[in-house]
Amino acid sequence: MDHAAATPLDPEVQRSMLPYYDKCFFNPSAPYAPARSARADLEAARARLGRVLGSRAGNITLTAGATEANNLAFAAVDGQVVADAIEHDSVLACVNARGGTVVGVDSAGFVSPEAVREAVGPLTELVSIELANGEIGTIQPIRKIAGVVNEERVRRLECGDPRPLLLHVDASQAAGQVSINVSTLGADLMTLSAAKIYGPKQVGLLWHADGVALRPLVLGGGQEGGLRSGTENVAGAVGFAHALEIAEQMRTQEAKRLRGLSGRLRSGLSKRLEGVVFSGPANTKNRLPGLVHASFLGVEARRLVIALERRNVLVGTGSACAASKMRVSHVLTAIGMDESVAQGSLRMTMGRLTSAEDVDVALEAIVACVTEERERVGWRNI
Amino acid sequence: MDHAAATPLDPEVQRSMLPYYDKCFFNPSAPYAPARSARADLEAARARLGRVLGSRAGNITLTAGATEANNLAFAAVDGQVVADAIEHDSVLACVNARGGTVVGVDSAGFVSPEAVREAVGPLTELVSIELANGEIGTIQPIRKIAGVVNEERVRRLECGDPRPLLLHVDASQAAGQVSINVSTLGADLMTLSAAKIYGPKQVGLLWHADGVALRPLVLGGGQEGGLRSGTENVAGAVGFAHALEIAEQMRTQEAKRLRGLSGRLRSGLSKRLEGVVFSGPANTKNRLPGLVHASFLGVEARRLVIALERRNVLVGTGSACAASKMRVSHVLTAIGMDESVAQGSLRMTMGRLTSAEDVDVALEAIVACVTEERERVGWRNI
Repeated sequence: MDHAAATPLDPEVQRSMLPYYDKCFFNPSAPYAPARSARADLEAARARLGRVLGSRAGNITLTAGATEANNLAFAAVDGQVVADAIEHDSVLACVNARGGTVVGVDSAGFVSPEAVREAVGPLTELVSIELANGEIGTIQPIRKIAGVVNEERVRRLECGDPRPLLLHVDASQAAGQVSINVSTLGADLMTLSAAKIYGPKQVGLLWHADGVALRPLVLGGGQEGGLRSGTENVAGAVGFAHALEIAEQMRTQEAKRLRGLSGRLRSGLSKRLEGVVFSGPANTKNRLPGLVHASFLGVEARRLVIALERRNVLVGTGSACAASKMRVSHVLTAIGMDESVAQGSLRMTMGRLTSAEDVDVALEAIVACVTEERERVGWRNI
Repeated sequence: MDHAAATPLDPEVQRSMLPYYDKCFFNPSAPYAPARSARADLEAARARLGRVLGSRAGNITLTAGATEANNLAFAAVDGQVVADAIEHDSVLACVNARGGTVVGVDSAGFVSPEAVREAVGPLTELVSIELANGEIGTIQPIRKIAGVVNEERVRRLECGDPRPLLLHVDASQAAGQVSINVSTLGADLMTLSAAKIYGPKQVGLLWHADGVALRPLVLGGGQEGGLRSGTENVAGAVGFAHALEIAEQMRTQEAKRLRGLSGRLRSGLSKRLEGVVFSGPANTKNRLPGLVHASFLGVEARRLVIALERRNVLVGTGSACAASKMRVSHVLTAIGMDESVAQGSLRMTMGRLTSAEDVDVALEAIVACVTEERERVGWRNI
């Protein structure tokens, strides 16, 4: 029940990668035919990724994961940057390193286009808003935010100000559950991760719109059009393309199925337990289909995780990065959650491995563990 | 015959990686036991890598390949940098981006410690010299260069100058053929690549000596001690550790075997063809055991590559990165090779897949192709 932290490699994806480990292991930059064939397969994978995004292959830079792609997006600009307070650590770290502006969110995690309008100043060059939040599931109104960004762009154009203004969207948590077609999003840059969609780890991409000039973080042999040097991971690229195609193909059906599972878990928890606070948007349309974020009053989440694990139920307490640091998640702080509530928070993210029976088992386990813990500490709902 | 460009994944290494694709796919930062087990396996892999290097695990930063590791080494300093003229593109790109100093090499590719002494000024903070060159096979006198670097360090210490001076060694091409024990090298930073030692692609490491402070290129969740954020590639780390252990275990025997194969190829070419110029050190002790660099007068290498390919002999024309750009290699320019000679250059790198029979087949093919080409252009040895 923690698919947002990691997904297993799809066996079909793995099969598509295997030839590049032994038979077609060649360096795509070498001059002979088998190497040119590796190059062709790499570029075919890029074209396949592009097709899913509704983009040309040339607008896709392959990276070693979403974190690197987010960093690469920020490297495109020198000026002021803006992001919202519930972005992934990699975005917030880039914003903080540049002394950027952090925009607040409401109690459901929404970034308001108005707040973005206020934060974008004449010196702003990049706005970074994720498509969907991996902890509480909020799907952001990216098209409206893109509209605000565009207004400022038009203003600059009209007054002859050549300063660029880019909208970057981290879609790592959204892919496979929400549409990631770049033509409808209105973004200039978009990050995707293979590791979140049953593809290989440390494989990601940064898509850029026509006319956006990226700048490399890693210099060298000039691979990836000079934007990401280093001998290419052909197996990774092919696996990523395959994983994204499968994710997109399954998306509508799987989102529906996951929405059913989340609803089953949520309503079960509501019926069976008192003192449960659900976070994220109330409307399922605006929430990641496979995600349930619940805070159990009077209970410490890290004790709950251990108790649930004994019953073979694996859940997260928030984003995996934050979890390892044992502090209250910045996302819960940003939505204004009381610390005492926040510390009883579990994030349950269902995915392809999760069946309705699994949800029922998890529900029983959570009810039992929360009840036990509450009895232990003598909690009363008041 | 192009093992320096890429190596196939060792089947045993691949087997060691497979569990991390499906069963143990968990995010090492997640809070439950299977994730902590992934974390433990990651750290065990780091310790195994450390054992081969003669280092503690904590001094190893895992990266997405050697190019990134080289870039990470340069990110450690702000001051002036020095490298020699036959370094890998990733090192030279970092030097050029910082307006650094490039030291020349002699006709065998050697960097003289005296030249390094002259190039290192009071503002120099990093010297980057590879352990062995991937194109002409020169093994550099790293310990002597480390001595020169240390002299300057002592001088600074004596006059109370706190400016650091680090020696970075790119050992990507050396691993598996030359000792990479950090305690005998005298370096402060060392780069290794898994892809060159029958391990996975886009997996590498930067080793740092105690007391060396690195600075991240990629910000985010704080993985790799804050030096390389992004969910870890546990499969890659485990595969890398396994590959390096095997490479080290086989090293002495394999180096001897490869030296025999190179000798066989070199002497065969010398006997059978006129107008062959071998590059790199004359003494086999100072040359990568598996590498033969030969320039065939009167012949264009790119035609030769195609002709050889028809006979199932795959060779490189230099480093793969340079090859794709179809220009004369910077290495050959640096050793003072005439452009007309340089354009007839092949790099033959033997490895685990190469048998004595393969060498004989390659020899026959090269002799035939060179002879044909020379007949076609009417070349005469004068």
